[in-house]
Amino acid sequence: MRISELDTPVAIVDLDRLEANIARLQAYLDAHGIANRPHIKTHKIPAIAQMQVSAGAVGITCQKLGEAEVMADAGLSDIFVPYNLLGPARLQRLIALMRRVTLSVTVDSAVTARGLSWAVSHSDAPAPLDVLVEFDTGMGRCGVQSPTEAAELAGLIHSLPGLRFGGLMTYPFNERTQDFVEAVRALLKPEGVSIARVSAGGTPQMWRAHTCPAITEYRAGMYVYGDRYTLQSGAMTLDDCALKVIATVVSRPTAARGILDAGSKVFSSDTLGLEGYGLILEYPQARFYGQSEEHGHVDFSACPRKPEIGEQVTVIPNHCCPVSNLFDQIVGARGEHVEVVWPVAARGRVQ
Amino acid sequence: MRISELDTPVAIVDLDRLEANIARLQAYLDAHGIANRPHIKTHKIPAIAQMQVSAGAVGITCQKLGEAEVMADAGLSDIFVPYNLLGPARLQRLIALMRRVTLSVTVDSAVTARGLSWAVSHSDAPAPLDVLVEFDTGMGRCGVQSPTEAAELAGLIHSLPGLRFGGLMTYPFNERTQDFVEAVRALLKPEGVSIARVSAGGTPQMWRAHTCPAITEYRAGMYVYGDRYTLQSGAMTLDDCALKVIATVVSRPTAARGILDAGSKVFSSDTLGLEGYGLILEYPQARFYGQSEEHGHVDFSACPRKPEIGEQVTVIPNHCCPVSNLFDQIVGARGEHVEVVWPVAARGRVQ
Repeated sequence: MRISELDTPVAIVDLDRLEANIARLQAYLDAHGIANRPHIKTHKIPAIAQMQVSAGAVGITCQKLGEAEVMADAGLSDIFVPYNLLGPARLQRLIALMRRVTLSVTVDSAVTARGLSWAVSHSDAPAPLDVLVEFDTGMGRCGVQSPTEAAELAGLIHSLPGLRFGGLMTYPFNERTQDFVEAVRALLKPEGVSIARVSAGGTPQMWRAHTCPAITEYRAGMYVYGDRYTLQSGAMTLDDCALKVIATVVSRPTAARGILDAGSKVFSSDTLGLEGYGLILEYPQARFYGQSEEHGHVDFSACPRKPEIGEQVTVIPNHCCPVSNLFDQIVGARGEHVEVVWPVAARGRVQ
Repeated sequence: MRISELDTPVAIVDLDRLEANIARLQAYLDAHGIANRPHIKTHKIPAIAQMQVSAGAVGITCQKLGEAEVMADAGLSDIFVPYNLLGPARLQRLIALMRRVTLSVTVDSAVTARGLSWAVSHSDAPAPLDVLVEFDTGMGRCGVQSPTEAAELAGLIHSLPGLRFGGLMTYPFNERTQDFVEAVRALLKPEGVSIARVSAGGTPQMWRAHTCPAITEYRAGMYVYGDRYTLQSGAMTLDDCALKVIATVVSRPTAARGILDAGSKVFSSDTLGLEGYGLILEYPQARFYGQSEEHGHVDFSACPRKPEIGEQVTVIPNHCCPVSNLFDQIVGARGEHVEVVWPVAARGRVQ
């Protein structure tokens, strides 16, 4: 079957580009001796995770336990969940997962560390659990705020039953990351505690990972697909973008306006600071200025030719990760030829 | 099971409020002789659609054929799809659906009308198909722009094999709707074409539907659940809000900041013009200022008491419809008691 025969909206992955993107980052990280642990939140598809591991990734990263469970079911065996896991239901699932795969997690508080320790040491899970300390070098999300806090938490983890201090984790990395890590290392040295892993992440800055020698492991997600945001960051080119959405122009109510059959239920409302909701390849001057759930609102006034009703257009989304989460399946194509249809097996795993 | 025993993030529907919301709009529309045809895009759950029909709705509204197919499978028998349906794959599905339920659709162009006519008259579907003309009285999405265009398109539908002109449709309605409809009626009178239905919609303005006497049918979606947006519109109160998301505070990296285990993968990035991403009931002064996919970023600095790590909070989302689409299941509760878990059967139906 050819792409043009598919009903729209449909999400298509160009398999040649996907494979090239996977190979390119692996080669870069290999060349710099950095372990590759890609974040599967972008694709949520076990087959792509397996491609990443086959290419040389040491394991994968999942943001929620539910994603990790799906990946474990599919045979992925080394999974990092860089998330504060709390509460009896979740800790029970963590223990179950520890029995099946090599698992590591992060914490940024003593409360969370003590909860993990309690759960692991009151179970028959294959202890110890590797626990990394998340630190914040500027994003302002989770993470301890200072090397002193990081060292204290590392010391606590080191002392708690069932846990092993696994190193440090941050997202994204920046010019402060190196000094932060070295300060923690210095604080931990007298205690005899070493930092096994320093895990950093982020697709926009991935080609600079080697400029921060402290980094031992890299987590990139979006690099497999690419999107308007990664294009703008300069980390990928339009020819690298593997994910596109085909939509149909269903209405041309005015001379300028065109309405697509894909809105926020397909593209999400993420702007990531960009103007508009996507890049329309056939009409690069078009302004995708608005969305409702099932409609994309496009201004074609700057385009020399304007689309007919019924015409299909190709859209590069702002942010590829939520697009994966919004589709039950993704079509893998080589050129115009549909080669595979993947269920997005780990989509919707909010817990 | 009690709500507090559920893992988070979890979406909860208060069944008492849901039932009251369904009854309240039905009573209002009944009192004004307006047919109720609720939009199921908000909940995407057949059991709730059945509650709406049992309460007196004449049928339901779905935004995509895929939603209509799920609802038909569940026994809903009168379905309106106010969408321009184009292309062979979609028209084939339309024909299949016409054999199963009473179906009506909209168009805003001759191209779309002719496509429907061709598909219906080249099939054994139980013709005619009721086709309404969508008109635009200000939203600037789909819809013909003038009464003249509307009348011309109505005339075309009237003349095309397999179709029956079913009336007019707009979203939302406003102060121009009445005059627009009457102008079309005057233009069609000499042709002997009458306007069987005038279908308007929108939850924020639902209690004003009777002020536009032309309206014969009303499509509201969000009224079943309510959200921050409908609160702000004044159409519902906080005590009417039936949908809430329970999340856990998983990090307190600074004195002011708290991070929830629910971000844009739960709430969507829809702001609908509102500040922030949700209302936290236990901390009304909190500012839910940011999101990443799996994290909610909250500033608790204005709150006299601040949450502990591990504490659960209750969030009223900005926009309930995408929240439904992001959850595979929704928990129905009466008070604190879980009564039912509904699969969101029509979620993710992008086609």
